[in-house]
Amino acid sequence: MVEQPAYACLQTLFRHNSILADTLSVLHWDMSTMMPEGGAAARADQLALLKTVAHRALTAPQVADWLAQAEGEVDEPWERANLREMRRDWVHASAVPADLVEALAKAESTCEMAWRQARPAADFAMVLPSLKVLLGLVRQTGQAKAGALGVSVYDALLDQYEPDGRAAEIDAVFADLEAFLPGFLARTLEAQARRPSPRLPAGPFPADKQRAVGLEFMTALGFDFTHGRLDTSFHPFCGGYPEDVRITTRYDEADFTSALMGVLHETGHALYDFGLPGGRWRHQPVGRARGMQVHESQSLLIEMQACRSPQFLAWAAPRLREAFGGGGPEWAAENLYRLGIQVKPDFIRVDADEVTYPAHVILRYRLEKALIEGAMALEDLPAAWNEGTQRLLGITPPDDRLGCLQDIHWYGGAWGYFPTYTLGAMTATQLFDAAKRADAGILPAIGGGDFRPLLTWLKANVHGKASSLSTRELLVQATGRPLDASVFKAHLEGRYLG
Amino acid sequence: MVEQPAYACLQTLFRHNSILADTLSVLHWDMSTMMPEGGAAARADQLALLKTVAHRALTAPQVADWLAQAEGEVDEPWERANLREMRRDWVHASAVPADLVEALAKAESTCEMAWRQARPAADFAMVLPSLKVLLGLVRQTGQAKAGALGVSVYDALLDQYEPDGRAAEIDAVFADLEAFLPGFLARTLEAQARRPSPRLPAGPFPADKQRAVGLEFMTALGFDFTHGRLDTSFHPFCGGYPEDVRITTRYDEADFTSALMGVLHETGHALYDFGLPGGRWRHQPVGRARGMQVHESQSLLIEMQACRSPQFLAWAAPRLREAFGGGGPEWAAENLYRLGIQVKPDFIRVDADEVTYPAHVILRYRLEKALIEGAMALEDLPAAWNEGTQRLLGITPPDDRLGCLQDIHWYGGAWGYFPTYTLGAMTATQLFDAAKRADAGILPAIGGGDFRPLLTWLKANVHGKASSLSTRELLVQATGRPLDASVFKAHLEGRYLG
Repeated sequence: MVEQPAYACLQTLFRHNSILADTLSVLHWDMSTMMPEGGAAARADQLALLKTVAHRALTAPQVADWLAQAEGEVDEPWERANLREMRRDWVHASAVPADLVEALAKAESTCEMAWRQARPAADFAMVLPSLKVLLGLVRQTGQAKAGALGVSVYDALLDQYEPDGRAAEIDAVFADLEAFLPGFLARTLEAQARRPSPRLPAGPFPADKQRAVGLEFMTALGFDFTHGRLDTSFHPFCGGYPEDVRITTRYDEADFTSALMGVLHETGHALYDFGLPGGRWRHQPVGRARGMQVHESQSLLIEMQACRSPQFLAWAAPRLREAFGGGGPEWAAENLYRLGIQVKPDFIRVDADEVTYPAHVILRYRLEKALIEGAMALEDLPAAWNEGTQRLLGITPPDDRLGCLQDIHWYGGAWGYFPTYTLGAMTATQLFDAAKRADAGILPAIGGGDFRPLLTWLKANVHGKASSLSTRELLVQATGRPLDASVFKAHLEGRYLG
Repeated sequence: MVEQPAYACLQTLFRHNSILADTLSVLHWDMSTMMPEGGAAARADQLALLKTVAHRALTAPQVADWLAQAEGEVDEPWERANLREMRRDWVHASAVPADLVEALAKAESTCEMAWRQARPAADFAMVLPSLKVLLGLVRQTGQAKAGALGVSVYDALLDQYEPDGRAAEIDAVFADLEAFLPGFLARTLEAQARRPSPRLPAGPFPADKQRAVGLEFMTALGFDFTHGRLDTSFHPFCGGYPEDVRITTRYDEADFTSALMGVLHETGHALYDFGLPGGRWRHQPVGRARGMQVHESQSLLIEMQACRSPQFLAWAAPRLREAFGGGGPEWAAENLYRLGIQVKPDFIRVDADEVTYPAHVILRYRLEKALIEGAMALEDLPAAWNEGTQRLLGITPPDDRLGCLQDIHWYGGAWGYFPTYTLGAMTATQLFDAAKRADAGILPAIGGGDFRPLLTWLKANVHGKASSLSTRELLVQATGRPLDASVFKAHLEGRYLG
């Protein structure tokens, strides 16, 4: 038998685990869109088994040796970055025993299915027992990884979604936003009150027509339907992998904007996946998307930056009018733009405007940190949520469906994920600003429904970089500086006070 | 570390492989119903990887020892049967090297996707190159298994679908049918010509209405939608597993019977899966369906026996009239019954009547045997198919879409499968005959849309037996004798000449 170089052995191992991850993604998509209720327990067994198969492969005794030997075998930059990312995965995996991986996977499935019942029933008590089990296992996982990474338990969980992300940096960013936003919100609401209210197009908007508009807009954005789908799920998401990207939304027949903005948001995620380098990097860690901060930046860049621009709405307005059969002034581009930047503190994060959105995230970040650190009991979550919403947004959710049951994340096991939304929003603003400076044709093209100039810039500066750079390096190379809150603030001031 | 009994180790191994098989089933269902075209190559990688993971586990060096040791550990009959079935799986798996498993899995996916293009284009040449690769790998697999099982290459392939099935027995059964059927077909067509022709309900029948009727009938049959779905695919099938059974059909707006009969057929398969014993046997080999002969008997028992009875059609007629808005005499139960037992040699197997169906199967059986044995070249398949159809049914397909491209089986890698359809049809007749003798209330209940008495008998005598008995033993216990062509012939004579 010929001895393989260690790096080649690692490439094969990671290729197999990437294919397993793709399989998991299909199973998860199916669970959220197609699976009958009674299939949940069997699905949980499948997810748990595949995760343990991948974990066992990555934690096999020879892998540590391979990683060490491979250091001497590679020197091309992407290969070195690949090896760095391999080691990152290995540190995360080898910190956690196999039985914990399996138990966590099952608890995630069980709790997510319980949440699906509890949310429409607005009954937190229904999901509390399985959420307790889940949080316990998440905390155990975080503790194990904290030891291996030499960071806090919260940072260890955050690191799973945002490599090298640290709470200390987030605390500084969020403190700055908390100082800025309440005053800014007040000024925005004042400015808004001085303008005539935009007119609301009247429904009903049949779901099939909303879907048709979604498909039309996705096509304009460059979504490739030979490599993807649009479906309906309880909580919108983007799943799959570059050859088969599946996004979802949910339809409210009284208001077409929620589903449509969801479609645009998830299409932003999809375009990132489509734009990854592929080829020899397709199943290697360096070929993956960088992390959730950059991933969220791509969805928010499309949804909040590009698709709330007056240019885009000038293109969209006649299409929406046509689709929904409206002839009145409420369908004018200017009115739709005003509607799109309407600010109003409300309960649901995914429907929130750009100005109040960070408050939703800061609330969740604070709560999940407290819950993970054991500074708060899960029983106290609904009250703490409502109190926090009152403090940050001045409103109190009437029930837990509009409160702590609204988001899937915690119930599906994603703890340490939420801050990436606001980091992503700030990153989106900074990237879009740089893109427009680099190519003055981007906005005019969007006004003609042509996203190709924007995508060309994104592909060159973000998508195609995959995980070859850290988030910070990527931002510096693309925009000339690390994350800079002043760009975000200037954008808000320009749009909402201008 | 405590030493586990060998049988316990085997149970864990088979449980994991069963969960992997469930995962494969979801991936295959998705590939046939939901996956965008461009996802095919990635899906092929996933299927191949999961198959090699399962194969590697089953062929690990210690498994042979476990099987030997476990002989001394179990003596309860179902455990002994389980061990027998474990050994059967192991013999099949260990005969074949891992790289052949992987290559075969990929070739199956590639060829199936090529077939999806070739079939609507009626262009056999489009699929010929990938079919050649696939058949080569199927033949290699058959040769490897033939050595391990001590049987012919064809029998080794057949054994994958019908355990202990042998071509020598099939040859005898088919020779008997070939002697009986041509004369019987002539008499049937004569008798049919003497009766007034049934009236054909006129379409169009919108797909959504057909689907609604399908769902209504599935519900009456006892299909549990908390544990299953109905979807659309290119070729109808039943996939999934007992907690999540997924059937498909395809809609022809000019003729509702094709989709509906497909739904009833696949529901028969689904009811078998729902009726398996579950519990401690759920992921063990003895808890699986017996084989394809019995599986096909369950679909055909529902489609051809129960749902073509005058009793069922008396229940169905007003529901069909209501669904499709027809008021004329063509919607009378008696007319629908006459339509349902109309005999007419035609090209498509899945739409064939009960009398001509065996000819379709005999043709495929002869051809696949010749192709596997190398007695015929794949290039000659279209001509041989057309010649055989002319000889057996007196008609010649105008193109390959209605000829050798019509069925997915060979293109998906299922060689040695076809004879189980006709063995299944004969088994269905014999089982239904025994069921009606055992419970005279079965047919009257069906007349009221109540399938519970039939299902009770099937569950006790077929579904619940899973793989604890051989096909032959199952038939003897359920009907008092092994497969007996005279029951099938008597049924045909009663229905078509009576």
